[in-house]
Amino acid sequence: MRPVLASIITIGDELLIGQTIDTNSAFMAQELNKVGISVHRRLAIGDVWKDIWQSLDEESKLSNIILITGGLGPTADDITKPLLCQYFSGRLIVDEAALNNVKIIFEKLNRPLLERNLKQAEVPDVCTVLQNKRGTAPGMWFEKDGRIFISMPGVPHEMKGMMLNDVLPMLQTKLQLLPIVHRTLLTAGIGESFLAERIKEFESSLPTNIKLAYLPNYGMVKLRLSATGNDAKTIAELEALFDMLKQQVSDVMVIDEDISLQEAVGRLLISKNKTVATAESCTGGYISHLITSIRGSSNYFKGSVVSYDNEVKENILNVSHQTLETMGAVSEDTVVQMIKGTLHNLKTDYALATSGIMGPDGGTNDKPVGTVWVAVGNREKVRTHAFHFRFDRQRNIEMTAHNALNMLRKFILEA
Amino acid sequence: MRPVLASIITIGDELLIGQTIDTNSAFMAQELNKVGISVHRRLAIGDVWKDIWQSLDEESKLSNIILITGGLGPTADDITKPLLCQYFSGRLIVDEAALNNVKIIFEKLNRPLLERNLKQAEVPDVCTVLQNKRGTAPGMWFEKDGRIFISMPGVPHEMKGMMLNDVLPMLQTKLQLLPIVHRTLLTAGIGESFLAERIKEFESSLPTNIKLAYLPNYGMVKLRLSATGNDAKTIAELEALFDMLKQQVSDVMVIDEDISLQEAVGRLLISKNKTVATAESCTGGYISHLITSIRGSSNYFKGSVVSYDNEVKENILNVSHQTLETMGAVSEDTVVQMIKGTLHNLKTDYALATSGIMGPDGGTNDKPVGTVWVAVGNREKVRTHAFHFRFDRQRNIEMTAHNALNMLRKFILEA
Repeated sequence: MRPVLASIITIGDELLIGQTIDTNSAFMAQELNKVGISVHRRLAIGDVWKDIWQSLDEESKLSNIILITGGLGPTADDITKPLLCQYFSGRLIVDEAALNNVKIIFEKLNRPLLERNLKQAEVPDVCTVLQNKRGTAPGMWFEKDGRIFISMPGVPHEMKGMMLNDVLPMLQTKLQLLPIVHRTLLTAGIGESFLAERIKEFESSLPTNIKLAYLPNYGMVKLRLSATGNDAKTIAELEALFDMLKQQVSDVMVIDEDISLQEAVGRLLISKNKTVATAESCTGGYISHLITSIRGSSNYFKGSVVSYDNEVKENILNVSHQTLETMGAVSEDTVVQMIKGTLHNLKTDYALATSGIMGPDGGTNDKPVGTVWVAVGNREKVRTHAFHFRFDRQRNIEMTAHNALNMLRKFILEA
Repeated sequence: MRPVLASIITIGDELLIGQTIDTNSAFMAQELNKVGISVHRRLAIGDVWKDIWQSLDEESKLSNIILITGGLGPTADDITKPLLCQYFSGRLIVDEAALNNVKIIFEKLNRPLLERNLKQAEVPDVCTVLQNKRGTAPGMWFEKDGRIFISMPGVPHEMKGMMLNDVLPMLQTKLQLLPIVHRTLLTAGIGESFLAERIKEFESSLPTNIKLAYLPNYGMVKLRLSATGNDAKTIAELEALFDMLKQQVSDVMVIDEDISLQEAVGRLLISKNKTVATAESCTGGYISHLITSIRGSSNYFKGSVVSYDNEVKENILNVSHQTLETMGAVSEDTVVQMIKGTLHNLKTDYALATSGIMGPDGGTNDKPVGTVWVAVGNREKVRTHAFHFRFDRQRNIEMTAHNALNMLRKFILEA
């Protein structure tokens, strides 16, 4: 059986001037892969008639399924719908269900309905309408010359609902799909090239239906094995190879699932029935944000004190005035005292503390930009580490957060 | 003069399975636009020889400049460099400067140099080498049939350095570029279609060299006017039109620059010489993270108490036990007390507090998922608002954060 290939076309000038980061494509690609559709190409183009038309011609030569997002809004620069109507030789008609949906949404918002909003309920008479339960613009499903074309709104929340509720089930029903099964593990503390060196014999011995990928992320590397097919034999083969891989990297493995570091830390805390809080200076609440992005994190996370100002370190975290004066806020003594203050005041089993200089300003000869002290601890013990990052502000914050979470994970494991 | 068009090709299987969100393209597009190069198409493809080759053929028919990122790593799946070498009929030679750079980096990291790392210093003899000051893989600049092809590493931090230090200056020198000038304003509290209705006469009266774009973002809408050319006449025309636009949306305008809401709030605080702190329950530190993403935020931001657990609300923010028991954590009384506790304990001029249910768990009939109380205040006054979002956890957090920051901004303006 030949693989089903998809192209994703995202439409919108905002993608080409860089005002918007395209998160839609990653979500769509993930979900398509899960049902066995390989994304072959992703293309972003502007709200330009001939560019969109040309992309439909081109991508339908290369892929079986063409997914299109964007350009369905109510404003003049949104031309996707009339273009699709002409491309598939249809004419626009009002879809009663879509019209009803638009009316209900505006009633809820208590806003008057404008002519241009009503127009959102119009669809080409040659498509299957995908109702939008989260917004006003309906999706459209076209078929032509054995190719499927699916148009969805560009608003991520609306697109996601439509993908999960309609597009994926319809594709699964329509096509006989050979799924792609992934097994992923996360490593930390070893570079991509050293990992590759270590497992090069394993890699070269892989059968043709199983592929290995290296996915570096915040100084960690994910290793992913992907098999085509989910029959018992393929799965057994994949699992056996995954076990071999795990053995070869056991000393640097964080977790053998495709989850984030913060989720791995959360699971560990739940399994030990323990709680944690953070005291963040330089990370400014980013670690707390990562932890609370996980549903159910209130079961093990009590809170954070973002002590950006030294006064807050003193008043809320009991860091001594003298330490701040003599050693400075970015020092081992300070993060150790932040741990103690957090354990005491937020009454948790574990605490994590950060203090550093993220840049671009604030560096000195002694403590240049990128100098960070991290501490993790419980009532018995505190472990500290000094990092020296050489990135920009945003990446220094991210690297500190991920390294600190990994220190916390190791500390809990060993405690 | 005809516009200079660029295509961006990002290479890597991780982009096609959705494991990585492509932030590189947005950065590159922004920077290219600033020097007057319009991005025409963005294409993401896998580490597949024939797909990369075909994309080079195709994009060079459509664009003057082809920027390529990714596939330059030291592992077996990175095939961009040998492919480019063959595509431009070159042969690989060692670049002494690149080799020296690799050696220095490994010396600093105190790691042994592997054969595959040394190979990173090899480049085709038909390119201009772009030295990588932030990593081991050098960039490459090729010219063929009047087209420029630039290959850069996919690591965002490395690509950014190379774009800013080498690629953009070299493009500006090489080409005579007509810049594109943008004027952007941010609105809040009005939908895209209502904005469009309000300014439709303005929009239809725009000259052909000036374009208007609507850029919705977290319930706010950015309006951007773009002019081609930076001669005095064009700039004067753009400024006059931007003034007209500002007048028409003055009641809903947040700021008349292309900066984020958190940066606008920061500037406002600096201009008034005031400080702020946040008390975050449901937003879990995300507002604090947004504020501290801005360089220099330590001048006006003292910190945050992420009071995820009710104990922390009581112990650190002085919220009364009785209020939490009778009214619940998600209540107007709670966020008002959180404001008072924050002003008192963190000693700031302003405070912002959030408490809500972000989902997917924790909703009740009375307080379904998406119910959020936000308060902003100073010593004289507290203002509260209840929101009801209907999104997923991540977006509920983001919407709460942005709406809360906008409430804070308005409060400071009126104080």
